Amino acid sequence: MDKKIVHIVKIGGNVINNEVALFSFLKDFSKLNGPKILVHGGGKKATELASELGLKPKMINGRRVTDKANLDIVTMVYAGLLNKKITAQLQQNNCNSIGLSGADANCIVAHKRIVKDIDYGFAGDIDLVDASVIKMFLKNEISPIFCAITHDNKGQLLNTNADTIASEIAVAMSPYFQVELNYVFELNGVLKNIEDKKSVIPFINFEKYEQLVENNIISEGMIPKLHNCFNALKKGVSKVKIGSEAMIKNINSNCTTLTLK
Amino acid sequence: MDKKIVHIVKIGGNVINNEVALFSFLKDFSKLNGPKILVHGGGKKATELASELGLKPKMINGRRVTDKANLDIVTMVYAGLLNKKITAQLQQNNCNSIGLSGADANCIVAHKRIVKDIDYGFAGDIDLVDASVIKMFLKNEISPIFCAITHDNKGQLLNTNADTIASEIAVAMSPYFQVELNYVFELNGVLKNIEDKKSVIPFINFEKYEQLVENNIISEGMIPKLHNCFNALKKGVSKVKIGSEAMIKNINSNCTTLTLK
Repeated sequence: MDKKIVHIVKIGGNVINNEVALFSFLKDFSKLNGPKILVHGGGKKATELASELGLKPKMINGRRVTDKANLDIVTMVYAGLLNKKITAQLQQNNCNSIGLSGADANCIVAHKRIVKDIDYGFAGDIDLVDASVIKMFLKNEISPIFCAITHDNKGQLLNTNADTIASEIAVAMSPYFQVELNYVFELNGVLKNIEDKKSVIPFINFEKYEQLVENNIISEGMIPKLHNCFNALKKGVSKVKIGSEAMIKNINSNCTTLTLK
Repeated sequence: MDKKIVHIVKIGGNVINNEVALFSFLKDFSKLNGPKILVHGGGKKATELASELGLKPKMINGRRVTDKANLDIVTMVYAGLLNKKITAQLQQNNCNSIGLSGADANCIVAHKRIVKDIDYGFAGDIDLVDASVIKMFLKNEISPIFCAITHDNKGQLLNTNADTIASEIAVAMSPYFQVELNYVFELNGVLKNIEDKKSVIPFINFEKYEQLVENNIISEGMIPKLHNCFNALKKGVSKVKIGSEAMIKNINSNCTTLTLK
């Protein structure tokens, strides 16, 4: 009841790929009151670098297959270039922050995805988020900035889905905080009509979500995303919001809020 | 008097460029008792990557000139690939560690080197090491692993000499710890005769250093390195050791120990 609110914000390509949008977002993120955590995906830079080096990114079912050469590239781009640029810009905005991969302070342990039909290579599925180290940072008013790289605690780095990292961190923090998880993406929220970008559904609880799926109102691409969100809500996260970067700047901006009940 | 010993170890290309040597070194580093800090240079990987991308590294007086494209490369290689690989391998060896650039937790603030005769580009000269955040990690038994990237607290990352980072951290920690600074390089220590790799001088104090310089016994390349070391000793560091990676494994191995008196 008396738990402090922690904001967890996940950003993806639409913010990361645009330097002006990223700078503006980081300014808004810095202004969020109280403890906050950022999780960032990779954007197009890794694909560009791979292509400049003559490597072709291999995709299966919309997921990147991470061979050794591509793992090195995403480690360089996500944990190096993007993570440190973001951290430096947050410092510039007086937001003390620390860039992290899962290997740092052993905060996220994963395992290499088990091969069933498809071998995704060095892709990580999360086993454990260490809440204690994240709490240490927040207590010292340092915002953790997570990139999409984890490790297996046996010396192997692993490429890991940033949406999943955000929701697993949210779940791990929920015994100690009232967690508000924010997914920033290219739309203003979950749309009633995919053709109409203004048809944002403002609130969805689990009952409504099941109805929307049953009535084919939610587009196929959104289903795993929302499934992930409700999973986090079921495991203790207080609230999930989905929308554009405007929802970080202005609490009254259009977005979709998900709650369990 | 009752201060705890902290080991600070700096490694360079001779360890980093060789995967087997690096793995073996990290095993030895993990076994060092008590609080410890690692600082790593870049090795040849950044030069290789620049060359694969068609960029020619520009050197003036043996120092890399860091333009924007090369800054991105060193940020990717030092703060991303190397720093995270090292951290993951230390975790594998049960050494809890955290990879850091100067931007992370604002721990090392530098300024872009002032242009006199030569414009070194995005090269950083250190203004401040925040001992408090490093102490927080050590208190929690987490070893900080520093790469050679700092920032100016105004959003700009900066390429910074790893030897200097190691000595500045050593000085910053010396009010709180008995600091032993170890420079690992390609030789067994400071040589009496540069042609004879076994002619290691076991002990050098400041008086002896001045004699050795006066008598032209120390080679020109070693003078700035030793100058840096004695500077650290004058500012409170207890002991500096220079030698090969063997000195981290075996306390009795050949090396040069520097003390003030």
